[in-house]
Amino acid sequence: MLVNGLPSDCISADDRGLSYGDGVFRTLRLRKGRPHQWSLHFAKLHHDCLAMGLDCPAADLLLHELRQLSATRPAAVAKIIITRGRGERGYAKPASGKHTRIVAIQPEPEFSVNKYQDGIETAVCRIKLGHQPALAGIKHLNRLENVIAASECRDAGLTEGFLEDGQGRLIGGTRSNLFMVQNGALFTPDLAYCGVAGVQRQRVMAYAGERGLKCSVTNLSVADLQAADEIFLVNSVFGLWPVRKFPGYLRTEFPLSNRIRNYLEEDETRS
Amino acid sequence: MLVNGLPSDCISADDRGLSYGDGVFRTLRLRKGRPHQWSLHFAKLHHDCLAMGLDCPAADLLLHELRQLSATRPAAVAKIIITRGRGERGYAKPASGKHTRIVAIQPEPEFSVNKYQDGIETAVCRIKLGHQPALAGIKHLNRLENVIAASECRDAGLTEGFLEDGQGRLIGGTRSNLFMVQNGALFTPDLAYCGVAGVQRQRVMAYAGERGLKCSVTNLSVADLQAADEIFLVNSVFGLWPVRKFPGYLRTEFPLSNRIRNYLEEDETRS
Repeated sequence: MLVNGLPSDCISADDRGLSYGDGVFRTLRLRKGRPHQWSLHFAKLHHDCLAMGLDCPAADLLLHELRQLSATRPAAVAKIIITRGRGERGYAKPASGKHTRIVAIQPEPEFSVNKYQDGIETAVCRIKLGHQPALAGIKHLNRLENVIAASECRDAGLTEGFLEDGQGRLIGGTRSNLFMVQNGALFTPDLAYCGVAGVQRQRVMAYAGERGLKCSVTNLSVADLQAADEIFLVNSVFGLWPVRKFPGYLRTEFPLSNRIRNYLEEDETRS
Repeated sequence: MLVNGLPSDCISADDRGLSYGDGVFRTLRLRKGRPHQWSLHFAKLHHDCLAMGLDCPAADLLLHELRQLSATRPAAVAKIIITRGRGERGYAKPASGKHTRIVAIQPEPEFSVNKYQDGIETAVCRIKLGHQPALAGIKHLNRLENVIAASECRDAGLTEGFLEDGQGRLIGGTRSNLFMVQNGALFTPDLAYCGVAGVQRQRVMAYAGERGLKCSVTNLSVADLQAADEIFLVNSVFGLWPVRKFPGYLRTEFPLSNRIRNYLEEDETRS
């Protein structure tokens, strides 16, 4: 792990990342030190830093640190955290200050092939996402809603769960973006009020655009999902999982999901 | 600063307090190592830990650490942070794990006497608080809304600002709880959907109860505030500030606010 470029596993206990969750992060896969989809991940990090008023480190610096930590590993998962650094007491952003940059590497988790081939079982989480348009879409460090939702799923023995807002609009998975397929067209939730707009969501939308498939960003309800031909979840660590089952829904064929999964994986091998 | 009882200013960079804001905190005043209103602060910390499924450290242990750090200081402000500790990757709460306990001391900030005597100027913040009943009231580490709101106030040259939810209901200040006085009765916002239920709010409600003053927990709008006889904000560091002015409101006499401020301060001297 590198903290501000130096080998360390420690950050200052008065870092605003800890005090207030005042920062952003990225999680991505690497092969022999080369990050997958780096240009998209960096663009998203840069976007999120800008949205939070944080200086974003240079892409070359981050790339160098990722390589330094993982060049000898065939496969790994990296986490990059940028916080607003140490702060005087008080919520207001310091007028100036040195941001904290953390680059950490972990072994790539292993996921059962069944999740990809047979699809996963999900349910709708009890916790509902609050609306905060000022922070929606950003992968910031205020993630207690995800912690509660993911804990619900784990306790229920489920791999993933669907998150709704308080108005019954689906937003995504606990750690993933959601798509549904109907009559060959794709639909994905509008993230203007909550949720995280991830890199793999962007890539699925690009896939659709390149092939002339319609992909609508819209409001989706549980009833919409129950009528779907296919549902799948995407993130940058597991890739794409089709949904086999949730209450009121059972599918065993995922033709478009599988094509999109191949695209996401092939493209990553080339990158 | 003590981290898990040992002198340190560093926490593990994979602490869930940093990764997800997965923890709670308290800020309180001390005189020669003795915390003000310790029983209420500890009860609130214990309540918040319980609500988050965190083990709360023993009161005696925390009290010992506070004294250790501040016994020689005539006045200080302490911050206590309890996080879910280091975690494997992933949002779900670890089945077990050692929590992180941070006790830090800072000099007491000095506030101008004018703020207490003449009252402060405020405005309504542009950012609106999102609803999250699962976390409302708890002083957890997901505080980006407060960071944005406090930065707005600082940039506008204001000491404090009022926070509303998306439905135009007032919730509090950026770092304080809000009360309004009308015809001798007190009113304070309902915090069932957002906001932090602080110790000084509890104390003002206790003051009202002891004296047979009516104190209603209710929905309040900006129009309600504009028609108030008095408005004041409370927290455990600055105590009580009357509000002199905000758009559509100007008051120069704060008789009940002053009596309550005396109560909060006197009581603290005795504690």
